[in-house]
Amino acid sequence: MTDRVYKTIEITGTSTTTLEDAIKTAIDRASQTVHNMRWFQVVETRGAINDGQVAQWQVTIKIGFALEESS
Amino acid sequence: MTDRVYKTIEITGTSTTTLEDAIKTAIDRASQTVHNMRWFQVVETRGAINDGQVAQWQVTIKIGFALEESS
Amino acid sequence: MTDRVYKTIEITGTSTTTLEDAIKTAIDRASQTVHNMRWFQVVETRGAINDGQVAQWQVTIKIGFALEESS
Amino acid sequence: MTDRVYKTIEITGTSTTTLEDAIKTAIDRASQTVHNMRWFQVVETRGAINDGQVAQWQVTIKIGFALEESS
Amino acid sequence: MTDRVYKTIEITGTSTTTLEDAIKTAIDRASQTVHNMRWFQVVETRGAINDGQVAQWQVTIKIGFALEESS
Amino acid sequence: MTDRVYKTIEITGTSTTTLEDAIKTAIDRASQTVHNMRWFQVVETRGAINDGQVAQWQVTIKIGFALEESS
Amino acid sequence: MTDRVYKTIEITGTSTTTLEDAIKTAIDRASQTVHNMRWFQVVETRGAINDGQVAQWQVTIKIGFALEESS
Amino acid sequence: MTDRVYKTIEITGTSTTTLEDAIKTAIDRASQTVHNMRWFQVVETRGAINDGQVAQWQVTIKIGFALEESS
Amino acid sequence: MTDRVYKTIEITGTSTTTLEDAIKTAIDRASQTVHNMRWFQVVETRGAINDGQVAQWQVTIKIGFALEESS
Amino acid sequence: MTDRVYKTIEITGTSTTTLEDAIKTAIDRASQTVHNMRWFQVVETRGAINDGQVAQWQVTIKIGFALEESS
Amino acid sequence: MTDRVYKTIEITGTSTTTLEDAIKTAIDRASQTVHNMRWFQVVETRGAINDGQVAQWQVTIKIGFALEESS
Amino acid sequence: MTDRVYKTIEITGTSTTTLEDAIKTAIDRASQTVHNMRWFQVVETRGAINDGQVAQWQVTIKIGFALEESS
Repeated sequence: MTDRVYKTIEITGTSTTTLEDAIKTAIDRASQTVHNMRWFQVVETRGAINDGQVAQWQVTIKIGFALEESS
Repeated sequence: MTDRVYKTIEITGTSTTTLEDAIKTAIDRASQTVHNMRWFQVVETRGAINDGQVAQWQVTIKIGFALEESS
Repeated sequence: MTDRVYKTIEITGTSTTTLEDAIKTAIDRASQTVHNMRWFQVVETRGAINDGQVAQWQVTIKIGFALEESS
Repeated sequence: MTDRVYKTIEITGTSTTTLEDAIKTAIDRASQTVHNMRWFQVVETRGAINDGQVAQWQVTIKIGFALEESS
Repeated sequence: MTDRVYKTIEITGTSTTTLEDAIKTAIDRASQTVHNMRWFQVVETRGAINDGQVAQWQVTIKIGFALEESS
Repeated sequence: MTDRVYKTIEITGTSTTTLEDAIKTAIDRASQTVHNMRWFQVVETRGAINDGQVAQWQVTIKIGFALEESS
Repeated sequence: MTDRVYKTIEITGTSTTTLEDAIKTAIDRASQTVHNMRWFQVVETRGAINDGQVAQWQVTIKIGFALEESS
Repeated sequence: MTDRVYKTIEITGTSTTTLEDAIKTAIDRASQTVHNMRWFQVVETRGAINDGQVAQWQVTIKIGFALEESS
Repeated sequence: MTDRVYKTIEITGTSTTTLEDAIKTAIDRASQTVHNMRWFQVVETRGAINDGQVAQWQVTIKIGFALEESS
Repeated sequence: MTDRVYKTIEITGTSTTTLEDAIKTAIDRASQTVHNMRWFQVVETRGAINDGQVAQWQVTIKIGFALEESS
Repeated sequence: MTDRVYKTIEITGTSTTTLEDAIKTAIDRASQTVHNMRWFQVVETRGAINDGQVAQWQVTIKIGFALEESS
Repeated sequence: MTDRVYKTIEITGTSTTTLEDAIKTAIDRASQTVHNMRWFQVVETRGAINDGQVAQWQVTIKIGFALEESS
């Protein structure tokens, strides 16, 4: 447990199927540009309604990732 | 962007299966009397326990819907 | 309505599959030592990320259970 | 556990005597138009002061009631 | 200050000009169906962005109005 | 509606009898030095326990009072 | 000021009469198994409604008590 | 940046025109008795409604001011 | 509804004139480096006071923008 | 338990060394004009940064003190 | 990642020296009866004031610990 | 007062010694890539426990820094 520093970013993932899938979508997209992701925390759960039915699940999460030591 | 004014109501849906289903139950029931629903936001997630097991998932959501222009 | 006093405890359940399963894991473990559980409330939803993917769903709930009358 | 969907409304009751009476006033008035009320939750407790004394107790509660199945 | 009971509803007003105008829009629309409105409280201030500019101001308010005595 | 500006102070009243009495105690004491009090809002409700019984009810309130125009 | 460490537990007391009585019920029950209770703090005030009337007052409190030094 | 100490007071300003004007009214009145004001923070935005229209904008702010060193 | 994932950033805009202008300043500056902005939400409203007058309006907003699909 | 009524004030203390020192600075300054201080509660912890380093620790606390009985 | 279920308890530690020491005091006392502690989170920071000086630092933390599998 | 727009980022610093050191660690690491940092605000204070002792102090802060004018 050497001293480490983490940064948190806030991402909203969406899905037409489940809440878990919306979170996975957010993390999957973030993994394209962010490395060393360690944890997430759900900040808000919303959704879009169309014709009286859930059209989209929207979950906003904070993602924490380790910052690499600069050399 | 022609909608002008929205009203929010708070509904608790229940389900014996999943959190998503509890939300769908809430929206499905609301659609019987409310039109032009646009979004929802999860306010609280609770449940009933019976004999040491989850007996009911209970999700309280705010539902936003557009108010029609009076003529 | 004969129950008189309830105690609340805070438990974090984990799962590799779904949010509902994490909650069930928490309640299932609590049922080994606590009786008369009546309700739960989700306090926080987090997760662990490994290799850019969700490795563990973590849901913290408050569980309310009836305290038996002392005799 | 046959109730399926609940609606929550927010009512402020007032009283010149006690906090409990302010809550009862709110529920009593609501019962004139709302049926199947199941629970309430205190949201805010305020009051009016006149001549250096409490002139009115004001308690805002959320009331939850079961929505009947449409047929 | 006879005992009175108030109901609160949540309305989102929108405007392309100012925050105050968004609130006025909400109250103006509510006044078509609700009487005896007494106060409002801002719950959330949001907006839509289009082409890098504010396209719509959106203010969600709670409106409190007196319930008339049933006779 | 001629009052223009209000100040809020935070006072904790105590009582050995009821919550209402603790609030009255706070307002009564405040009235010795503050004039034109208009409203209060409960911020926190606590109490002291002695020998397994409530020894003191403690209610913290915000009190709003009108500031007189300077001349 | 010799007490050193305190533990907090969360208890919900109920009553058919007053809010104060619900709190007393919680503390009275807790005193059967917990010693050295020092303070409480109200966390939530709810109630059950039956036939359009308050059937039960429910107050959730946190109770703080001193942990005895282990020897 | 010698060590400094600040005090915060809570003031509600009102206006019949804009939110900004309500804040200015609060600060203008406070400046009659408080010196060295440095910042404000909006705590709550409310208003009075009369005849279905906004009659008064009410903004509650916290004002921070530097306490002068006693000599 | 083709946008899939959004990122939120937190920006504080300032102005010497109005709250709306402070928000526009924030969004205008953000538009220099961020594309596909969709919404904002006010997080905090503060200001600087100089010589007993508002010297600067400061509004902190969260801005949500769509992340483009990586190819 | 003879103290009856308490007032709370909000003070921000600063320090160039530690968080504890910032709190002590606030209480030390308050003691010049306020007597019978009993407790404090940390409301917010902030700081100023200069040249990439912490230049000042800023801790805002609420201080509770007993109001003397007027005679 | 073999731990499955965690319980959270709330403990207040005190110290006459530093905030860190108050937290250590809480964890040290908890370690006498609780095993497998993994993390803590600060819930509230308070203190007692005596003769115009900090007499006691009081930090309330939530402590999370792993529940062992029953066999 | 020439700075116009600020951005806020959220960083978690860690330390094995003190809370202040955890904050300094966060700011020190951020200073490698971010310029014109002006203030920070503590968002959350947590820690890791190992063998019944604090193994790591973890402080999450928001850091505000001025965005330079684009030319």
